Amino acid sequence: MIVSRTTIFVRRRGSRTNSALVKAPSRQLSHARPRPPDEWDFNRRVSFICRRDLNRTLEELQMKIQLGAQNCLYPMPTTLVGATVEGKPNFVTIAHVGIMDLGSVSLGMAKAHYTNAGIKESRTFSINLPSTDMVKETDYCGLVSGKRVDKAQLFHVFYGNLKTAPLVAECPISMECKLIKVVDFPKHDVFIGEIVTTYADDAVLTDGAVDYGKVRPLLFTMVDQSYWMLGKRFAKAWSIGKELKGNKSTEAVGK
Amino acid sequence: MIVSRTTIFVRRRGSRTNSALVKAPSRQLSHARPRPPDEWDFNRRVSFICRRDLNRTLEELQMKIQLGAQNCLYPMPTTLVGATVEGKPNFVTIAHVGIMDLGSVSLGMAKAHYTNAGIKESRTFSINLPSTDMVKETDYCGLVSGKRVDKAQLFHVFYGNLKTAPLVAECPISMECKLIKVVDFPKHDVFIGEIVTTYADDAVLTDGAVDYGKVRPLLFTMVDQSYWMLGKRFAKAWSIGKELKGNKSTEAVGK
Repeated sequence: MIVSRTTIFVRRRGSRTNSALVKAPSRQLSHARPRPPDEWDFNRRVSFICRRDLNRTLEELQMKIQLGAQNCLYPMPTTLVGATVEGKPNFVTIAHVGIMDLGSVSLGMAKAHYTNAGIKESRTFSINLPSTDMVKETDYCGLVSGKRVDKAQLFHVFYGNLKTAPLVAECPISMECKLIKVVDFPKHDVFIGEIVTTYADDAVLTDGAVDYGKVRPLLFTMVDQSYWMLGKRFAKAWSIGKELKGNKSTEAVGK
Repeated sequence: MIVSRTTIFVRRRGSRTNSALVKAPSRQLSHARPRPPDEWDFNRRVSFICRRDLNRTLEELQMKIQLGAQNCLYPMPTTLVGATVEGKPNFVTIAHVGIMDLGSVSLGMAKAHYTNAGIKESRTFSINLPSTDMVKETDYCGLVSGKRVDKAQLFHVFYGNLKTAPLVAECPISMECKLIKVVDFPKHDVFIGEIVTTYADDAVLTDGAVDYGKVRPLLFTMVDQSYWMLGKRFAKAWSIGKELKGNKSTEAVGK
């Protein structure tokens, strides 16, 4: 049994198949009363095809640790967001980004950022993907405010079709975006933008298409406040899963 | 000069500092008239501190290729999104995800997905992070519809505090979410959810915190429809950029 400040699943004594939810003292949930034991949905457990591939034992699967309401949707690509603020180009480091649909992206930006007012005013912004060798400049843009420091001095700045979204020439990929919506959160503005034009260095293209192995994007995780490299490409999407198609264990049970 | 179907920047003949925008035949922009030459903002170009670190020549920086309005905000973590649909657990593969603020996430899901109705009805969903060794099962969940196939058969399914968001035991990280908003796009529902509880395998924790090197998330890029591994952690955020702090070339120019 794992001893921690979190609620944990442990194997129920004397049981081979069921587990119970047992609550240990938790900082996050300290005001909550202990929950009654809770069953996993083992009725739905059938012999399933991925067991041997995943090579994990049932005991491992039964042990889950609750971490409270922790956002674990990482790693995320780290970006340099550009905007014209008080008439000047400014850049801020944002990794809380997202894809809405194929042509639209989101930026979750704390309201305290200097850049937010510029995005609202010009209704344009840029998203630049720095490569791993720009880690110092990128991190620096998240450490200091454009109120005090002219961060555009760090880069070659250029403008594209929108004219008001400054782009970073050193970044291998840059996108100009038009603001289409702001979703209001208590402490954040979420800017949703439509991508208007994308600029790439020839050096990161393979047969005319962006090759992320060459882009070497800077990936971010919050829990350890770290930057990571991209590893190797190892499988094709909408393809490798076909090996399971037509398998009686999966498709025969369909409705 | 690069010959491609895209619009390209080339170095202007006889010029050492300016570049012009020259348009080559483009599939994406085939109906547009050729644009007039466009200047980069070279007025803002100053000798800057990162040049030697980035080790890139001005000529390289001047060469940018326009890719049209291509979304290049990748790689993104691939997730298995769980929801109760028509009374049964279902899972769909979604990599168009995002972080709104620290406690909220987004899912950009094509309206054609079977799962969308379930999320709207129960107003709950789960986000599960598969590891690279689940690539076949994960990809499979993006290939077949829950209308036809019972994808829950692939996994051990369990339920947490919300009771209606099915979670995948095989995934090292799972988050239960409460739907707080749907942002409507022409062909997509963007579901914004508040994270309620996060479950982790003990095996992916280091000193009680999630270690993405152990999670081995499945990263996705659209352009080549590929899955990638996470590489190595190599720098600390809100830290490595401090090396540039106090440098006269940057901070002295601040307003």
